[in-house]
Amino acid sequence: MITAKIGNRIRELRTQTGLSQEKFAQKIGMDRTYFASVELGKRNISIVNIEKIANGLEISLSELFKDI
Amino acid sequence: MITAKIGNRIRELRTQTGLSQEKFAQKIGMDRTYFASVELGKRNISIVNIEKIANGLEISLSELFKDI
Repeated sequence: MITAKIGNRIRELRTQTGLSQEKFAQKIGMDRTYFASVELGKRNISIVNIEKIANGLEISLSELFKDI
Repeated sequence: MITAKIGNRIRELRTQTGLSQEKFAQKIGMDRTYFASVELGKRNISIVNIEKIANGLEISLSELFKDI
């Protein structure tokens, strides 16, 4: 499922930033529990929120979707 | 706005397939008026629908987001 794939990818990249879920969610102004459910692949996340996460990770959308 | 950027990109790539909005929407099993509003940048499209469109275009998600 695409939601699980993108969730795993986000978790992988967020972990590399050294930030906890809570700190990262705070950084991008996203609710922590919502962000946690995205990483778990439980959300059919929208493009606006995907962009917010890519910005927080400081990567392009194309890079975020690499190998997905 | 990201919704306009992705809409323009989808329109550009869909046009290259030679399919009309109607035929393309039919191909991917999406409502034609919904698909038209995506191309117009009026929808905060979800990842499940983005994947459907990428599959219809026969490109990867990373390719779809190239230069966005």
